[in-house]
Amino acid sequence: MTRRITSAEVIVCAPGRNFVTLKITTDDGLIGWGDATLNGRELAVASYLSDHIAPLLIGRDAQRIEDTWQYFAVGGYWRRGPVTMAAISAIDMALWDIAAKAAGVPLYQLLGGASRDRIRTYGHAMGRTVDELAGSVQALVDAGFTAVRIQTGVPGVDTAYGVPDGDGRYEPASAGSRPVEEAWDTPAYLRHMPRVFAEIRERFGEDLDLLHDVHHRLTPIEAAQLGRALEPHRPFWIEDATPAENPEGFRVVRAHTTAPLATGEVFNSIHDYRQLIGEQLIDYSRSAVTHVGGVSALKRLAEFGELYGVRLAPHGPTDISPIGLAATLHIDLAVHGFGIQEFMPRDPVTLDAFPNAFRFEDGHLHPGDAPGHGASLDEDFAEEFAYTPAYLPVNRLTDGTLHDW
Amino acid sequence: MTRRITSAEVIVCAPGRNFVTLKITTDDGLIGWGDATLNGRELAVASYLSDHIAPLLIGRDAQRIEDTWQYFAVGGYWRRGPVTMAAISAIDMALWDIAAKAAGVPLYQLLGGASRDRIRTYGHAMGRTVDELAGSVQALVDAGFTAVRIQTGVPGVDTAYGVPDGDGRYEPASAGSRPVEEAWDTPAYLRHMPRVFAEIRERFGEDLDLLHDVHHRLTPIEAAQLGRALEPHRPFWIEDATPAENPEGFRVVRAHTTAPLATGEVFNSIHDYRQLIGEQLIDYSRSAVTHVGGVSALKRLAEFGELYGVRLAPHGPTDISPIGLAATLHIDLAVHGFGIQEFMPRDPVTLDAFPNAFRFEDGHLHPGDAPGHGASLDEDFAEEFAYTPAYLPVNRLTDGTLHDW
Amino acid sequence: MTRRITSAEVIVCAPGRNFVTLKITTDDGLIGWGDATLNGRELAVASYLSDHIAPLLIGRDAQRIEDTWQYFAVGGYWRRGPVTMAAISAIDMALWDIAAKAAGVPLYQLLGGASRDRIRTYGHAMGRTVDELAGSVQALVDAGFTAVRIQTGVPGVDTAYGVPDGDGRYEPASAGSRPVEEAWDTPAYLRHMPRVFAEIRERFGEDLDLLHDVHHRLTPIEAAQLGRALEPHRPFWIEDATPAENPEGFRVVRAHTTAPLATGEVFNSIHDYRQLIGEQLIDYSRSAVTHVGGVSALKRLAEFGELYGVRLAPHGPTDISPIGLAATLHIDLAVHGFGIQEFMPRDPVTLDAFPNAFRFEDGHLHPGDAPGHGASLDEDFAEEFAYTPAYLPVNRLTDGTLHDW
Amino acid sequence: MTRRITSAEVIVCAPGRNFVTLKITTDDGLIGWGDATLNGRELAVASYLSDHIAPLLIGRDAQRIEDTWQYFAVGGYWRRGPVTMAAISAIDMALWDIAAKAAGVPLYQLLGGASRDRIRTYGHAMGRTVDELAGSVQALVDAGFTAVRIQTGVPGVDTAYGVPDGDGRYEPASAGSRPVEEAWDTPAYLRHMPRVFAEIRERFGEDLDLLHDVHHRLTPIEAAQLGRALEPHRPFWIEDATPAENPEGFRVVRAHTTAPLATGEVFNSIHDYRQLIGEQLIDYSRSAVTHVGGVSALKRLAEFGELYGVRLAPHGPTDISPIGLAATLHIDLAVHGFGIQEFMPRDPVTLDAFPNAFRFEDGHLHPGDAPGHGASLDEDFAEEFAYTPAYLPVNRLTDGTLHDW
Repeated sequence: MTRRITSAEVIVCAPGRNFVTLKITTDDGLIGWGDATLNGRELAVASYLSDHIAPLLIGRDAQRIEDTWQYFAVGGYWRRGPVTMAAISAIDMALWDIAAKAAGVPLYQLLGGASRDRIRTYGHAMGRTVDELAGSVQALVDAGFTAVRIQTGVPGVDTAYGVPDGDGRYEPASAGSRPVEEAWDTPAYLRHMPRVFAEIRERFGEDLDLLHDVHHRLTPIEAAQLGRALEPHRPFWIEDATPAENPEGFRVVRAHTTAPLATGEVFNSIHDYRQLIGEQLIDYSRSAVTHVGGVSALKRLAEFGELYGVRLAPHGPTDISPIGLAATLHIDLAVHGFGIQEFMPRDPVTLDAFPNAFRFEDGHLHPGDAPGHGASLDEDFAEEFAYTPAYLPVNRLTDGTLHDW
Repeated sequence: MTRRITSAEVIVCAPGRNFVTLKITTDDGLIGWGDATLNGRELAVASYLSDHIAPLLIGRDAQRIEDTWQYFAVGGYWRRGPVTMAAISAIDMALWDIAAKAAGVPLYQLLGGASRDRIRTYGHAMGRTVDELAGSVQALVDAGFTAVRIQTGVPGVDTAYGVPDGDGRYEPASAGSRPVEEAWDTPAYLRHMPRVFAEIRERFGEDLDLLHDVHHRLTPIEAAQLGRALEPHRPFWIEDATPAENPEGFRVVRAHTTAPLATGEVFNSIHDYRQLIGEQLIDYSRSAVTHVGGVSALKRLAEFGELYGVRLAPHGPTDISPIGLAATLHIDLAVHGFGIQEFMPRDPVTLDAFPNAFRFEDGHLHPGDAPGHGASLDEDFAEEFAYTPAYLPVNRLTDGTLHDW
Repeated sequence: MTRRITSAEVIVCAPGRNFVTLKITTDDGLIGWGDATLNGRELAVASYLSDHIAPLLIGRDAQRIEDTWQYFAVGGYWRRGPVTMAAISAIDMALWDIAAKAAGVPLYQLLGGASRDRIRTYGHAMGRTVDELAGSVQALVDAGFTAVRIQTGVPGVDTAYGVPDGDGRYEPASAGSRPVEEAWDTPAYLRHMPRVFAEIRERFGEDLDLLHDVHHRLTPIEAAQLGRALEPHRPFWIEDATPAENPEGFRVVRAHTTAPLATGEVFNSIHDYRQLIGEQLIDYSRSAVTHVGGVSALKRLAEFGELYGVRLAPHGPTDISPIGLAATLHIDLAVHGFGIQEFMPRDPVTLDAFPNAFRFEDGHLHPGDAPGHGASLDEDFAEEFAYTPAYLPVNRLTDGTLHDW
Repeated sequence: MTRRITSAEVIVCAPGRNFVTLKITTDDGLIGWGDATLNGRELAVASYLSDHIAPLLIGRDAQRIEDTWQYFAVGGYWRRGPVTMAAISAIDMALWDIAAKAAGVPLYQLLGGASRDRIRTYGHAMGRTVDELAGSVQALVDAGFTAVRIQTGVPGVDTAYGVPDGDGRYEPASAGSRPVEEAWDTPAYLRHMPRVFAEIRERFGEDLDLLHDVHHRLTPIEAAQLGRALEPHRPFWIEDATPAENPEGFRVVRAHTTAPLATGEVFNSIHDYRQLIGEQLIDYSRSAVTHVGGVSALKRLAEFGELYGVRLAPHGPTDISPIGLAATLHIDLAVHGFGIQEFMPRDPVTLDAFPNAFRFEDGHLHPGDAPGHGASLDEDFAEEFAYTPAYLPVNRLTDGTLHDW
């Protein structure tokens, strides 16, 4: 029996923020949903899908998920890359959604079933000062989180990653005609961050797991210094300690610190992890289902990591649509080698636009038991929220040098 | 929704040869079949299942396949090994059979769908002399095979692996109170085998793919010599060139020959392949679904290999029951990194005992489209064929030293 | 003094084939031209530019080429990938064009000046049969080429890479609603290719350099076999011998053959070469200026290679527009570590649409001495040639498995 | 002269706990005893022996111990694994018992004689609280132990490895229809354990050697953290710091700590140690004579380790029968590269069932000087103690994930 794809529509909308969504329909009336959002580069992915590869889906058997993945990922000749892989991720996610709906089961049942009862998450705490940060941590603790990522302003530096300007929700991408330019001072950061950890650890005690995201801003030896400095305060992990284009840089970090290391949110292929996982240079792989190649690829990554003691800890901020988050949660629940899931609460209007089956309780998520991955787009609702360009910030050193944001 | 396991029965029978079969039944009336046959050690696996782990299945959710795999493979404390993993393989295979039946689809549809249309196989040609061998090759070619494994007697050596004593079908395990003792002479073999290749290549031309199984009998440097000697005759692969307990031995072989290398039929864990695949010392992984941990494990192995250009080429002789073969074929059809499938025709009485959906045509197999993996045991039919002990041979050098068989 | 960018226009047209062109204008009236063509994925790059990053150019100082490169390549957060880097390549190329025009010099004068007098090229010979191929080789020799890439049909295989179907010019991308599906048979190819080399070497003698492109279709050990088999016929290089996602695969090839190895046309970042160049696994780096990040990036790649004895041999077929080719030739002339340049003659209508300064003579190219890189788009002429979707082929093994094209 | 084996009986009994014992009798009336106990999987080993390999012993020369080992370990084709190797271990142990009895000497005299006068042991201290633990340590110190393994409950975690629930003796395997499910919380453990070491070290001073067993529950980097944290308290060793399926994980641990590392109780082959010993990643090899292949194999392991400075420290808890313990002690006394012996006192009824010659004094054991290994089974006594199924626990993280126990 074949199940032919009859349409593949790309929907760009902005309920709360910009999203690119793929809707695949089959000849037996099943609908699969995929998330193709690439923060700040949404329309290029929409074009990649609409103009180049979505038309090729028509008439294909929706059940040949792996063949379709290879058809686009290998058969497209120009491989990898964020735009290409976001497009392929959406297709893969939608096809797995269809497969699970056809079987009448939640997606995780097709992935080997539940390997755990619930999915531990970490929340984002942030503040311009340590006091503000502590308030943010407390709010997360009150909401049930047992693991919190802490980001804070650095004295003398105007802006910092992960810290809201005003009192509102932090959303790194900003609407407008060009990226915000932030500032960065490595020595100030290296002096400051251990004190922040010490203070938060002191205030919240030993049980709370504290994570931190360096956001690629340190050289390997600076990252090694940070690791050594944070060790006494027991970080759960240090994320993106040094730019991962230079995977050997992690050897330097690793040689000097036992602080667990996480990386991968900017990766878009399992091949980006060959050395990092194969040499056990990291402890957590942080790819997004929406960027690494969908359900097929993220599950493969989890199992590759499992061989080497590297756990899956998927990317999960607001630029992953509820469809992407839903797909992620099914993988989180199913694979053995799971670590922790990043979770930022979505804007209520986002959740209205994307009805979904996942639930949050006591710091844990569960994908729910609706057939498929359980999330979809309410197209009528969403069409009122038109796309407007938005950009992630860029970053400069105090001398004006462009730096990793 | 849960799907509870209500019974897990172990059936030992011998329709054509000895087999151990696991039958799992669920509270909604689904039946899953698994193959637990370990050639010459059948009853130990049956005991492992009946006395130790099958009772633990009762009441478990049949959908939690991965958790069940980990529960037995990791939770059993004493890990790996042929007996343990054959038992776990049968459970995993039966649970995937149930999952696919519940979804109403052939198993490959739960594994990402078909990545190819048909599964290329190789057959076993053998003869005491080169003439006999050529006749055997011709019969396979006539039957549609485009790839043939060639094994032959060695002048001056009484017996050889893969060669029948009389005119009958070759079955390595022999019923009786003790293993047959065969003889082995490495220098005679190393002189003889290149001539056999030359002769068969000469007679059958360039298009026929020729495989050969060394059966672990050479040291690394001897295997390197054989590889160099066979290269002009273009072997498709050399299998088990040197004992794989010594994986570094493959470095020696690899350094000297471009003959493709295959190994793994005696392995029972993906961990056995860490170095061989990670260092790209082999080209084909040859585990059996029945020995390596079932569908979950064989698929994982295929995907691990894919990262490093190592293709899956599963073990498939008569000691893999039609249930095991069926499960294998679904994986072969689904994974991207497939190479070739070993195939020995089964005794007709075996096929009568194990109704199945797979089909052979023009040298290729296909698992068929019955829900699940498509194979089962006709218990009434089978109960007339009682188990009798049988052993694989052992091997000795001409001086009496025990040698790898 | 600053030189502000006042406009950045993206032009999609198809004079002879599809091209994406970027035109940057400055406040002092200079115009820079960049090539952003990504074969079969043109509109996604056009969107990446138009919708996301070209607007950010307005008001920037055109002289800050490196800062602009980093602004987009690092500051864009989602790094690398064919779409992203094609867009950045075009910007970089256009800015260097402007810089050279402002200085009133041909671009190579800003790159350190000419390191050689002319740029050796190789042409593409192809034929369904060896006779046809020999005719094609002869034509190239007659045209002055001293190095020829030879590709030929494989007996029993319907289509082959690099061979035209009919009598016309070979153009891999075909217009139409979906990719052509080609077929592939590795064993047939491995038997055939050494004979082709032998025959062509025999007919054309020792002086002609013969190149060959495997197009990623072999596993590492198969590539090693080919290298060994071609060695007696003295290949100039073997290109893309095995898929470069698995860079360690080149270790296997390298261990077995002294045939020089070239790779990189599918790469889009110098980071893709870290292991291949760092371990000296290849001899030629084959990136396109249009895909790897423009003039800045291709020059850096040449210089990185020079440290390890790896020479630059840029990608140069018809999907690189005359603008891209012009920019490439300036780098070829300027860098010390140059090897050879791929050159396919362009359709005359392409050359009419893209006036340029480069010239071909005696098998060698020269970029010419017009200010800038010397190529531009005649927008009025080009607008009559509208884009129509075209796709590169995909490839399948005889069993239906998707394979590297 | 040959000494023919006339019978090989497998006896399953439960004096104190389950044991599998092999009794080999020769035509000259000698009796050799072997231990084949595999905790929680006893009957599968009994079947492996009774149904498959014990019958093959009949008629063999009991003096050909090495040939017999190879006959089963290599000649059995399906190699390694806990069930297979427990069976072979028992055979090997019994044949060495016979050889020594035939010579009229204690076994160690056939192994090169005594390399030391007595065998240092360590005992198991445990307690739900540190106070309870300290009491347990004191009791061991009072009993003469100079080395003590300390295990304790973790605050907030219900159960912990190595700690009895009530006031009784700790026995990990529990009778019943399924394994107990324990709970595990890595962060809580990592915070707690260094304090326990500090406190015990403080109370008992510098002279007492303190050991600790992680029981495979940490990832490599977590194990490295623990090593660093325990270093100031001078651990004698950290055992099973990370799962040994991933031997490269020990590289990570080793890079960060000088805490001595011990592993191997779950291993069943010297090949499992290739990388760990070859790269000097551990300091003590911890195999059991009953699981690794008997006297022949454990002695070989000691000698392989000696090449690389890795000392033998055999597994020795209650699931090793007094026969197994006796055989171990002869090896401990004989080999040069000995470290320390694990010792848990046996249940008095166990010692009644297994008369033996070893003796404990001042924290040291000695195998005694009875001919053979000195231990046997009182079959009449034992037959009153019938086997009942028992299981080792399994372990789950707080989110329900199955974890290494």
